[in-house]
Amino acid sequence: MGSKPHALSAMLRPRSVAVIGASPDTKKLNGELLHFLIEGGYAGDVRPVNPNYKEIHGRPCHADIAAAGGADLALIAIPARAVPAALDQCASAGVKHAVVISSGFAEEGGESASLQTRVAAIARRTGMRISGPNSEGFYNAIDRVAATFSPTVPRSWQREAPIAGAKRIGIVAQSGGMGFAIFNRGIASRLDFSYVITSGNEVDLTMADFVDYLVDDEDTGVIGLFCESIRDAAAFEAAAARALGRKPIVMLKVGQSEAGSRATASHTASIAGWNAAYDAFFAKYGIISTGDVDEAMAACGLLATNSSWSTGRRAAIVTPSGGAGALVSDAMERAGFGVPALSPQLQEKLRPTFPSYGAAQNPIDVTAQGSRSGALVEAVKLVLASDEIDLAICVNSLAAESPLTFDAAELARAARAAGKPICVYSYTLSSEARRGAMAQAGSMVHTNLAAMAGAMQKILAAAATPKPENLSPKLPSAAAIAETLPGGNRRALTEWDAKRFLRQFSVEASAERLAASAEEALSAAESLGYPVALKIQSESILHKTEVGGVALGIANAAELRAAYRRVLASAGGAPAQGVLVQRMAPRGHEVIVGVFNDPTFGPIVMVGLGGVAVELFRDVAYWPAPISPTEAENLLRSLKSARLFEGFRGAAPLSLAPLAALVSQVSLIAAAGRDSIAEFELNPVILHGDGSGITIADALIRTK
Amino acid sequence: MGSKPHALSAMLRPRSVAVIGASPDTKKLNGELLHFLIEGGYAGDVRPVNPNYKEIHGRPCHADIAAAGGADLALIAIPARAVPAALDQCASAGVKHAVVISSGFAEEGGESASLQTRVAAIARRTGMRISGPNSEGFYNAIDRVAATFSPTVPRSWQREAPIAGAKRIGIVAQSGGMGFAIFNRGIASRLDFSYVITSGNEVDLTMADFVDYLVDDEDTGVIGLFCESIRDAAAFEAAAARALGRKPIVMLKVGQSEAGSRATASHTASIAGWNAAYDAFFAKYGIISTGDVDEAMAACGLLATNSSWSTGRRAAIVTPSGGAGALVSDAMERAGFGVPALSPQLQEKLRPTFPSYGAAQNPIDVTAQGSRSGALVEAVKLVLASDEIDLAICVNSLAAESPLTFDAAELARAARAAGKPICVYSYTLSSEARRGAMAQAGSMVHTNLAAMAGAMQKILAAAATPKPENLSPKLPSAAAIAETLPGGNRRALTEWDAKRFLRQFSVEASAERLAASAEEALSAAESLGYPVALKIQSESILHKTEVGGVALGIANAAELRAAYRRVLASAGGAPAQGVLVQRMAPRGHEVIVGVFNDPTFGPIVMVGLGGVAVELFRDVAYWPAPISPTEAENLLRSLKSARLFEGFRGAAPLSLAPLAALVSQVSLIAAAGRDSIAEFELNPVILHGDGSGITIADALIRTK
Repeated sequence: MGSKPHALSAMLRPRSVAVIGASPDTKKLNGELLHFLIEGGYAGDVRPVNPNYKEIHGRPCHADIAAAGGADLALIAIPARAVPAALDQCASAGVKHAVVISSGFAEEGGESASLQTRVAAIARRTGMRISGPNSEGFYNAIDRVAATFSPTVPRSWQREAPIAGAKRIGIVAQSGGMGFAIFNRGIASRLDFSYVITSGNEVDLTMADFVDYLVDDEDTGVIGLFCESIRDAAAFEAAAARALGRKPIVMLKVGQSEAGSRATASHTASIAGWNAAYDAFFAKYGIISTGDVDEAMAACGLLATNSSWSTGRRAAIVTPSGGAGALVSDAMERAGFGVPALSPQLQEKLRPTFPSYGAAQNPIDVTAQGSRSGALVEAVKLVLASDEIDLAICVNSLAAESPLTFDAAELARAARAAGKPICVYSYTLSSEARRGAMAQAGSMVHTNLAAMAGAMQKILAAAATPKPENLSPKLPSAAAIAETLPGGNRRALTEWDAKRFLRQFSVEASAERLAASAEEALSAAESLGYPVALKIQSESILHKTEVGGVALGIANAAELRAAYRRVLASAGGAPAQGVLVQRMAPRGHEVIVGVFNDPTFGPIVMVGLGGVAVELFRDVAYWPAPISPTEAENLLRSLKSARLFEGFRGAAPLSLAPLAALVSQVSLIAAAGRDSIAEFELNPVILHGDGSGITIADALIRTK
Repeated sequence: MGSKPHALSAMLRPRSVAVIGASPDTKKLNGELLHFLIEGGYAGDVRPVNPNYKEIHGRPCHADIAAAGGADLALIAIPARAVPAALDQCASAGVKHAVVISSGFAEEGGESASLQTRVAAIARRTGMRISGPNSEGFYNAIDRVAATFSPTVPRSWQREAPIAGAKRIGIVAQSGGMGFAIFNRGIASRLDFSYVITSGNEVDLTMADFVDYLVDDEDTGVIGLFCESIRDAAAFEAAAARALGRKPIVMLKVGQSEAGSRATASHTASIAGWNAAYDAFFAKYGIISTGDVDEAMAACGLLATNSSWSTGRRAAIVTPSGGAGALVSDAMERAGFGVPALSPQLQEKLRPTFPSYGAAQNPIDVTAQGSRSGALVEAVKLVLASDEIDLAICVNSLAAESPLTFDAAELARAARAAGKPICVYSYTLSSEARRGAMAQAGSMVHTNLAAMAGAMQKILAAAATPKPENLSPKLPSAAAIAETLPGGNRRALTEWDAKRFLRQFSVEASAERLAASAEEALSAAESLGYPVALKIQSESILHKTEVGGVALGIANAAELRAAYRRVLASAGGAPAQGVLVQRMAPRGHEVIVGVFNDPTFGPIVMVGLGGVAVELFRDVAYWPAPISPTEAENLLRSLKSARLFEGFRGAAPLSLAPLAALVSQVSLIAAAGRDSIAEFELNPVILHGDGSGITIADALIRTK
């Protein structure tokens, strides 16, 4: 309040809206648009534009947008080929925002794609901000601006009262169908919404712009997104960084599968990004990400109705049905929660509240009779007030049409008083009557248990997300990186060159020398100390081992002479830089440290334990570069195989600090050198079990 | 029809029902029971029994059950302490079946548990079959016998028309609340039911008895179970074996978590079994098992509405929304399905059916306009008729109240004609009007996508379940096993004894001899051939390596003498059987083969690859013993790490036949010796990479 309105305010909260090509026929798209806008209760000025009509629904209809005197917002749903001219006229008439609903642009390919290029050019040239094309428009539920033909919107006008005190959810969706499906599902759960914005092909305005708006919007408490592909990663990152710690973002991300990517590519002419990069990016900014629409809805609902999220995972389950209690316990434990047995003291307090055939352990079975006599509420209050429990699940059957048999408002009050989350699950489907009674008391009724448990788990994980460290001051100079890389057309550096490059940026690899003759190799081995390894160095040999270009564990001069001949011969006449003589590293855990350059998000760090864990079990972890040593250590500890570092089978726990420092330093180089370096792979990096640090036993760098 | 009725027919389809302690007060449990039975439309004879009333609701009320002339079925919902006497009177009056709804028995513990013992004794003594106590009764929807007070049952009397042509589902649940919750949820999805039977504490009749009834019941097409713990594994196995290939069983199993087990233990006084054993048992009999109620419902619905289940996993997705298509593609691929790009030929056929901005690849985006003009149905027909696709998902928004815009019946006909499954997913929530229209056309509308995809995956896996081989003729004699085991109080056999035992039953381990002196060890090593291993053999040393009782890779006589002294000294004065001299096995993959004795299901085989795969990633697989060599090979191949056998990183593929033969033979011994052997662990078994077979390098047997 009082601060400068957001640049998109005039579009999303317009004082006037022109409907280009408006029609009195409500069976046509253009007619429906006008009809919904008027019927939706919009209090601003609606201006139909169509030379074929003098008036529509008793309102004057204008011959063109100039005659209409422009508008804050123009809605365009006319055939694609007529769109560029209409946009030009809007810009000339001073219109600052347009939503293009028409289809038949990039998603169709061929000549239609060039139409989209023309629309983009108009936005650049005129400064008019354009949303779409191929969009389903938006709905502003605060000011009742139905700038859409979605059939879900009229249904919301007569909606049941939303959950009392719940925060409003603002939706941005790249698919109109899915954006308004989320709205439809949310309304059925009595959730409340601020905006549903669909962004279509995003020729100008992208999801990032709308997220930026919703972060500041005081009517929006939770941001929900449906995303196929982020087109403007830098802007999205800026918006996400602003939201972190301030307003939760729930992300329904599709296009994870091969077919899903095809669908999104054809649908909005985007190429779905590499999924691991998306996941890493979302994790970094505490974005609650899921591929399941029900889990996304559950997360929005939980966040809208609960303000206090600790990171504790000890759940109490209170129920009148032992069977349902077991069902919910299993689901919560599958989602990573504990359902701890309660202390004898707490059980003693609980037992008098319900019949003797109930159970006080956890799940707490208050019995059907206990549920009717207040035991349900009493038990929830007792567990929430105790320090044994971080959150409560109230499990019930809410199928009956009759009034609730317990005081639901008291449940919500108890949760607020304890500063802990509570959620309500009905194992039967809820009747509208009881859903309404629960809503009045401030609670959402969940009926999809897996979605509810999964959403809670993700909310807690996101709630623990720290602000990313600002590593910009630590980045090396991009110019220095580009200059230090070997010149010419070389796309892959030899191990020797890669390590020389890394040493320039404070990454020490292994003790080694390049030898041009057997005598040089002998002298190198003497000074490094046996045992040593020999490796052929040639830009044309990418896989040294496969051609016999590697000899390991050479123990003395005689072995070295023989090995030198063999290794050199492996080049088979290809130009070789020489033979690398390397001191054999002591034994240890073999780790892979890599950096990929993702087309959307840029350099992404990958870590994993070598061998079977990576190859068979895909036990790898990703994080956007740059990454601090602390973040790198957390990333390494997130591996399943990290147990190997933690004193596995009686071994002493290992410090990960040297490895974390390496990962961080490599990530700084990758982030600064994103325009010149395509890929790093340090494999293996050996983490020595004796605490003597790490050795980079092999290194590959590909340049752009 | 015409065959002898099932023994439980008289209970579940009774000609007369007595309500013991019947009351005119419908707010009381006893009053509600009587009221529901009458109001439910039961055509048989209802006999209220209560000395305090002459008549109730205009029906004569009898002073006792004898005065009522007995009944096919007695319903008992009186205080627990009065139940045994009431049951005795029922038995005396010739009542053959009783359902005890009263609570306050084993689930309460203490003196109440002894009440349950008395009820069990009455069943045994009188031959009257008793269901419960602590049950919620049953509902026979065919004959409209509402022998329950569940509030979900009256709601079903005015239910909407069920899905046309769908098979009826018969439910058996150990939790009354959950059994009728499944009913409630199913009715909302327009599913049809034959029976909902809740079995409570199962003092006499168990889930197995009711499953046996439903397997034969002609009104039941799908069996759905809610299970906390199987009490009568042999009877359940017999019923499951009869159902396999004849009628699908969907199992909602709870008590998988620690807290879930506590809940079921306190709820129906059972101890939830070891979960891996349950899963293995369910897999063996093609039971579709899940811990999620929505997935169980989805599976019941898919099975009730589709008859043709191939094992093909190539899905076509047809939708008017590209975003929804991507959502469904991702979910299907997460569940193990393929969503293959269609051939250019098939795409050519599809394209004319929808506007140019649609997509023909798969997912097939027919666009909203195409959906209204028949393209949706046309596309489904085309893909189902092709041999590129095994099943179709019709994805739509069914939120509108208006009539369907496509011919739903045509969809179902196309699926039948192609002999392939079809399922319908609405990404918005379905309106009742459209759900009804789809039901009329024979389709269920799914709205929980993860549950639908997961259920399909499990149905396909179960559909591929072969009849288990009859291995009884191959079992060794139980007496021979007991006799061959070393006598006395020994609970753990030394490696030497374990392998001698195994050799008696055709399991060859490794080349080895027991030595009582260094000279004997030398002579053994000479004859076996170096290198050898030495291992102390003592019943009091379970972990030989930890005490220094193992020496590996001994290359010659001098090393052997020194090692012999060390190994012998490791016993530290404990009585030793001798020192085992073993030829060192050639290298290979280390495999664990174990057999546990599960309290519910008996011996369960476990296989896994040694080391990290088992310890960190729990990559193990289970199957009930006995297991055939073919089944054992399938089990081994189900491991994620089985890729190591299949030519991993350029290695030659390995034959698993010797390993499978070993697993099978050990399982036969374990099955025959279940009363004398507690546990086998062969670890490691080395599968040689050179194709020379296997070596059992260590073996442990614990006896009972």
